[in-house]
Amino acid sequence: MAVYTEVSDEELSAFLATYDIGTVLSYKGIAEGVENTNYFLHTTSGSYILTLYEKRVREADLPFFLKLMQHLAARGLNCPLPVQNRAGSALGRVSGRPAAIITFLDGIAIRRPTAAHCGALGRALAQLHLAGKGFPMSRPNALSLEGWPPLFQAAEAQADTVAPGLAERTRRELAFLQTAWPQDLPQGVIHADLFTDNVFFIGPEVSGLIDFYFACTDALVYDLAICLNAWCFEPDASFNLTKGRAMIAGYQSVRRLGVDEIEALPVLCRGSALRFMLTRLVDWLNVPPGALVKPKDPLEYDRKLAFHRHVRSAAEYGLERQTA
Amino acid sequence: MAVYTEVSDEELSAFLATYDIGTVLSYKGIAEGVENTNYFLHTTSGSYILTLYEKRVREADLPFFLKLMQHLAARGLNCPLPVQNRAGSALGRVSGRPAAIITFLDGIAIRRPTAAHCGALGRALAQLHLAGKGFPMSRPNALSLEGWPPLFQAAEAQADTVAPGLAERTRRELAFLQTAWPQDLPQGVIHADLFTDNVFFIGPEVSGLIDFYFACTDALVYDLAICLNAWCFEPDASFNLTKGRAMIAGYQSVRRLGVDEIEALPVLCRGSALRFMLTRLVDWLNVPPGALVKPKDPLEYDRKLAFHRHVRSAAEYGLERQTA
Repeated sequence: MAVYTEVSDEELSAFLATYDIGTVLSYKGIAEGVENTNYFLHTTSGSYILTLYEKRVREADLPFFLKLMQHLAARGLNCPLPVQNRAGSALGRVSGRPAAIITFLDGIAIRRPTAAHCGALGRALAQLHLAGKGFPMSRPNALSLEGWPPLFQAAEAQADTVAPGLAERTRRELAFLQTAWPQDLPQGVIHADLFTDNVFFIGPEVSGLIDFYFACTDALVYDLAICLNAWCFEPDASFNLTKGRAMIAGYQSVRRLGVDEIEALPVLCRGSALRFMLTRLVDWLNVPPGALVKPKDPLEYDRKLAFHRHVRSAAEYGLERQTA
Repeated sequence: MAVYTEVSDEELSAFLATYDIGTVLSYKGIAEGVENTNYFLHTTSGSYILTLYEKRVREADLPFFLKLMQHLAARGLNCPLPVQNRAGSALGRVSGRPAAIITFLDGIAIRRPTAAHCGALGRALAQLHLAGKGFPMSRPNALSLEGWPPLFQAAEAQADTVAPGLAERTRRELAFLQTAWPQDLPQGVIHADLFTDNVFFIGPEVSGLIDFYFACTDALVYDLAICLNAWCFEPDASFNLTKGRAMIAGYQSVRRLGVDEIEALPVLCRGSALRFMLTRLVDWLNVPPGALVKPKDPLEYDRKLAFHRHVRSAAEYGLERQTA
């Protein structure tokens, strides 16, 4: 929620001179994205976002993210298109940081999605999965099964200061997931962070998916589990079955889930809830002094986990009986 | 440099429903303005800035600022135009704060202005002063002669921790200004804060003046003194006479200075340098813990004051011999 790196008018003009997108008419630092610095950029050729990648994004991963967006946009997905500079690259440097210019997408992030929004999101997610087919690069999901134990280690000793019993609950959950985690599910490119702030709507329709900087190669249905967690719970941690039903039906109207994916859904929901609980817990325990960004509450995902532990089949998330 | 008040999509839609500017296509919090919250707003009718006024702006002053911008824009000045809502008012409320929608201006704030930029700024400043004629409201300048002693009082005890001798120098300067401050100069609406970040350029031309939230009624030439301070010094505190000459000549090409204004210029430059030194000093000594905004250096203006103390006539700022 802040501009981390200031870009002067001279630096911007010099950077833009390496592109064919006209001259700058205005630019404003925008308070969006906690990982990177973003500028709204208006030039004589249109509107763009200039992103400077800050330290939390590994520079070696940037070609994966940028080429993925180009791949998806070329297949008709509404996502930002990284603009190539005159040298044919979408990645440059400005003010000492790796930087890219991507097309500006209109649309609004909906804070409190309705079931209709969840249905539209389900369709868009499946479209993303289909559009990702054939993308030649791969990137392992560092925040999946093997990434959780080191995250937990970093927080374990202090976990009970956040909520009594949290350490023991999490220890058991980790042990369960190590034995129950499904293998051999259909793989592909997943967004892996499709929270409401990364989905733009105009009216009832999805106008764009943004922020692909957690995208990776993993089980496609794991992305659906992340979205069920992020979109279908109410503020009191109750699961809204109408929203879940709309999301899953929306997804299946574009890409049919296999039996193995359906069976895996409850465990994947537990895993993705644990993933966000753990990263939030680490952030919560490591708020730098003077931070402007309020850390997100890890206990929100601890409560969601409690719900998932009692789920026995995907029907409880809203999966309708398959009509084969 | 931060979004202080978050506006949800529901709050924004409800607010926009009171205006005739179409429906929202996108909005982004922008990292601009340390006093207020600003959103870039794109609707089906165009681009705007949504400003939420935070605690440092007195709500009672808002009608002055908004009506002034309307007055100036109606007279052809390139400044943001506050948009009236359906009830005919430019002032509303959103997310619990007073709020206004103003038109979006293209242009770039130039960090290191050239003499040509200073000349263009001089012309724009004089155009502002002419356009302000006939504006029926008035607002005293709270940060002029009577406002300085209480500011100094708030910082006096700690001033020498910032620079040895600063308290004594400032005490003498205040005493001098109390006796030497000119009266009866031509009055009118002044911007009072026309630093480089509040002036937009497209190429060599001024495309807009923004941020009228210090505007007030005062001696017109005092505004020129503020701009000489803000635009014509080099980073080493040396005065760039070429820039001063360009600014004063630019100003006079639109509005001729009177003999009394010319004579007063050196004292007004001292006063305006003291004004910014004092407000910066108070901010410097009162940085809240965890503040993201780095306070501006009061000593920059202490050094400028040292220059002004040796000035004997406006010629030293670049005033050309008057050709009657």
